[in-house]
Amino acid sequence: MKNRFSLLFVLAGLLFIKPAFAQTAASEFKGAEATQAHYKALYYLDESDPKKIKQTLRNMDNALEDTRLKGKVEMELIAFADGVAVYDKTGPYEAELQKLLQKGVILAQCSNTVRERHIDKATLFSFISYVPSGNGEIIIRQADGWATIHP
Amino acid sequence: MKNRFSLLFVLAGLLFIKPAFAQTAASEFKGAEATQAHYKALYYLDESDPKKIKQTLRNMDNALEDTRLKGKVEMELIAFADGVAVYDKTGPYEAELQKLLQKGVILAQCSNTVRERHIDKATLFSFISYVPSGNGEIIIRQADGWATIHP
Amino acid sequence: MKNRFSLLFVLAGLLFIKPAFAQTAASEFKGAEATQAHYKALYYLDESDPKKIKQTLRNMDNALEDTRLKGKVEMELIAFADGVAVYDKTGPYEAELQKLLQKGVILAQCSNTVRERHIDKATLFSFISYVPSGNGEIIIRQADGWATIHP
Repeated sequence: MKNRFSLLFVLAGLLFIKPAFAQTAASEFKGAEATQAHYKALYYLDESDPKKIKQTLRNMDNALEDTRLKGKVEMELIAFADGVAVYDKTGPYEAELQKLLQKGVILAQCSNTVRERHIDKATLFSFISYVPSGNGEIIIRQADGWATIHP
Repeated sequence: MKNRFSLLFVLAGLLFIKPAFAQTAASEFKGAEATQAHYKALYYLDESDPKKIKQTLRNMDNALEDTRLKGKVEMELIAFADGVAVYDKTGPYEAELQKLLQKGVILAQCSNTVRERHIDKATLFSFISYVPSGNGEIIIRQADGWATIHP
Repeated sequence: MKNRFSLLFVLAGLLFIKPAFAQTAASEFKGAEATQAHYKALYYLDESDPKKIKQTLRNMDNALEDTRLKGKVEMELIAFADGVAVYDKTGPYEAELQKLLQKGVILAQCSNTVRERHIDKATLFSFISYVPSGNGEIIIRQADGWATIHP
């Protein structure tokens, strides 16, 4: 028991040394260190602005290729509200989506949005998945330790 | 001690089986599974765009009604900067706010915004609460395990 | 062992008492309580809109000065995509950035953005730091317990 407390004190000490160091050596800061074996990230998209959509897909690919994360990150894209545009068969995003899909990314769509907007699922790519609500997905994923990112 | 390590190995194994499965069966993916008894979600609103505000309130209600979360989620809305518009008595959001309030949602406003903009609290709905800063609220809530969502 | 389970039951009980109380006394709600000794927050900026940038820097300062967090929060700003504008030497943000820097904030820039846009680092403030990718930074920080905020 005593040993465990000692360890706790050492860990608590390290916690406070780290920020102090970061403050005095900001110019030497090289970004957060990846110390875990596995990362999880959920991107959420609720806009149809092509610039925003393209940036989101590029961001996801950049994170997958980040040397600190490569091969260690599980990823999902959840679209809701106007974000459904990313999965429109007539849209320009198929190549980027296929690229992400081949890297193991889950591509999910909010069923509420589809129902509320009377969208025919046949107009969306067949390789996507549906979840009850995009917002429920965000809440459950965060509770399960996923990072969530809103570009 | 040995048993604890065995359990750790089994849990670590499960961690790696799950993403692998998700990757090979994306088309059968039905969304994240709710495995916890209780969820917490903080929405933050910093814009006055009516479309954005309406979407935020609708998102919150959708999450409350998500079959995976219904009756299991504690929720708060924090408004700051231009987001204070959602609580303006002359605005069109009272019905939606009352609906959320009756479902147990905490409706909170950043005191910094009110002070910096010299807003008379009498112009805002009386059923809202005030917190020292909206950004402090986000940081503390996340540290306490709340999911945070920026629509 | 029995004592540990008793403690667990008490903690579980408190978990359910708190939201119930919050629901019946929303008007007396004073914001989340800071119960931890140390907080960590990462702000991410991916837009060049001056209003958005100014608001982000003001938000960060407001959180640093929140009485619940003052002296207890470690903070970082990560800029990527159009957000790089915040670090442009010809821009109007040097005073606010210096103020945050003196309060210990880490100011970081995504290297991918700089490379993809062929930005000369000499055009950016010399007191900033570079990370491999802004999105990788967000994912790693969240996994490490940092709150992340997207204004």
